[in-house]
Amino acid sequence: MIEEELLKRARLVSKAIDDLLPVAHPQGLYKASRHLVDAGGKRLRPAMLLLAAEAAGGDPEKLAAAGVAVELVHNFTLIHDDIMDNADLRRGKPSVHSLWGISGAILAGDTLYSKAFQILGMTPVDSDRILQAMDVLSRTCTAICEGQWLDLEFERREKVGESEYMEMIEKKTGVLYGAAAGMGAVLAGASEDVVYGLEKFGLLTGMGFQIHDDVLDLTAPEEVLGKRRGGDLVEGKKTLIIIHAIAKGREPEAFGRRDATAEEIERAISLLEEQGSIDYARRKSLDLVEKGIDALEVLPDSSAKSLLLDLADYMISRRY
Amino acid sequence: MIEEELLKRARLVSKAIDDLLPVAHPQGLYKASRHLVDAGGKRLRPAMLLLAAEAAGGDPEKLAAAGVAVELVHNFTLIHDDIMDNADLRRGKPSVHSLWGISGAILAGDTLYSKAFQILGMTPVDSDRILQAMDVLSRTCTAICEGQWLDLEFERREKVGESEYMEMIEKKTGVLYGAAAGMGAVLAGASEDVVYGLEKFGLLTGMGFQIHDDVLDLTAPEEVLGKRRGGDLVEGKKTLIIIHAIAKGREPEAFGRRDATAEEIERAISLLEEQGSIDYARRKSLDLVEKGIDALEVLPDSSAKSLLLDLADYMISRRY
Repeated sequence: MIEEELLKRARLVSKAIDDLLPVAHPQGLYKASRHLVDAGGKRLRPAMLLLAAEAAGGDPEKLAAAGVAVELVHNFTLIHDDIMDNADLRRGKPSVHSLWGISGAILAGDTLYSKAFQILGMTPVDSDRILQAMDVLSRTCTAICEGQWLDLEFERREKVGESEYMEMIEKKTGVLYGAAAGMGAVLAGASEDVVYGLEKFGLLTGMGFQIHDDVLDLTAPEEVLGKRRGGDLVEGKKTLIIIHAIAKGREPEAFGRRDATAEEIERAISLLEEQGSIDYARRKSLDLVEKGIDALEVLPDSSAKSLLLDLADYMISRRY
Repeated sequence: MIEEELLKRARLVSKAIDDLLPVAHPQGLYKASRHLVDAGGKRLRPAMLLLAAEAAGGDPEKLAAAGVAVELVHNFTLIHDDIMDNADLRRGKPSVHSLWGISGAILAGDTLYSKAFQILGMTPVDSDRILQAMDVLSRTCTAICEGQWLDLEFERREKVGESEYMEMIEKKTGVLYGAAAGMGAVLAGASEDVVYGLEKFGLLTGMGFQIHDDVLDLTAPEEVLGKRRGGDLVEGKKTLIIIHAIAKGREPEAFGRRDATAEEIERAISLLEEQGSIDYARRKSLDLVEKGIDALEVLPDSSAKSLLLDLADYMISRRY
């Protein structure tokens, strides 16, 4: 049911991307910019924007451009992150820099960045609301840079605290979901407390989503993950699960060892499961989503509000 | 005289940068973002914005934030370009990526990008005008990406035509000067034809400025250039001068040969001078600036207009 509703909105956004980001001259640049955007993705952020607008009493039909803006920002960050993480694959396809080189990928990302602001400016609502949405989006982009900077810094550090990790995922993942929901409300002309409530909802469910992702890395079957289980673990990523384990004084041996064997990884996962580190993250993820849902109290009941609740649930129940 | 006027405006903008882009948390990111911004630069683009606003009857005092936005966009493009060009030095200091690595420089540039939009949004004029200025700035950022893409593409190509080169420098350098002047006019509340005239003035003088830069690479004394004379030449950059020489069937032997000796470079420069390729570029640069000045006819005489004329002259008479 929610999958179907999401698919409907994803199609709307993909259609709007075709209209608003055509492959222009120089073609190479626009092909590189469209590569990841066209490689799929569930368009969850634009879906959240459109549902938030609807739940706030607005007309989502008018907000396709704003949905595209949020999706382009998301893709721009993925393209630049993949350069930094040296990632060859994304959405099962070669990453932008592995096809167009680092220079091409930097420019493809930069192009999506400016297009996002240009396209947001086309939203057919009054100037004050667009300007407020642009303020949200630009602040969000800054926060995402801060989050990615912290993520890179944490990789080089011995010890990362739980609150530091929470700040990092808030900035790296939470704020864009928060911006999507908040912008939907702003553009729908919602009151300040509705905007605030929806932004909080997006932010917290986005953080829950990120922690759920960390859990999936250790628990999802490989055929569903599409990559080796425990990838984050052997790369030494300091997820909430690892931070919990280290605090317990039981860092798994496979942690940060890219040459770990499949058995060593499975042993590490069993250890993390036994000592409750994975459950700790599961609870935290659920907790964040519940707090997010509480923030929706400001909204009257509606079918769009129900869909937002389903979306929140979907975000931490996905198995891939 | 014009130097003094420029310096006055540069100080105003540098002061506003300190206020609007403080070194926040995470400090490393903000230090990397400020590094190049603080390394100097003449702030010509914000000066053009402020002078254009004044010439259009506006109050430049209110537009410091808009000037900062244009300067940050300029610096963001330099940071990302330096990664692509593998340039170790900029403004006589180590480039951002040579101090903070490629990942750090990508993020520093991305941060300036979002800050530019956020700061432009703070300009104390009415929403419609800010929104129009944001549209100009986002389109300009896209065009700069297109220009840089073409520049990289030309390096790999055998042959580049003069009109292709002109398109490239229009996008890579011209549009941001055009945007600066046009945004100044828009934010001053100028009429459409004044906005158009000022934008055209900025665009054409910006292009003249770029061609003048190509000439300086071959004619300025090394102690003024701060780097080896003929750098563009031995790196194989297809400047207007080289395109003219190739069209005459006389490509200098040192072209594209990083191992060329000082004598070989001087011989190449003499050849280019003798056959009129350098003079051809000089004339073109002057021609563009004259056409730019013609576009100022829409403006009544004023001291700000005189300063704009002086600025145009300054842009193609600088010796470094």
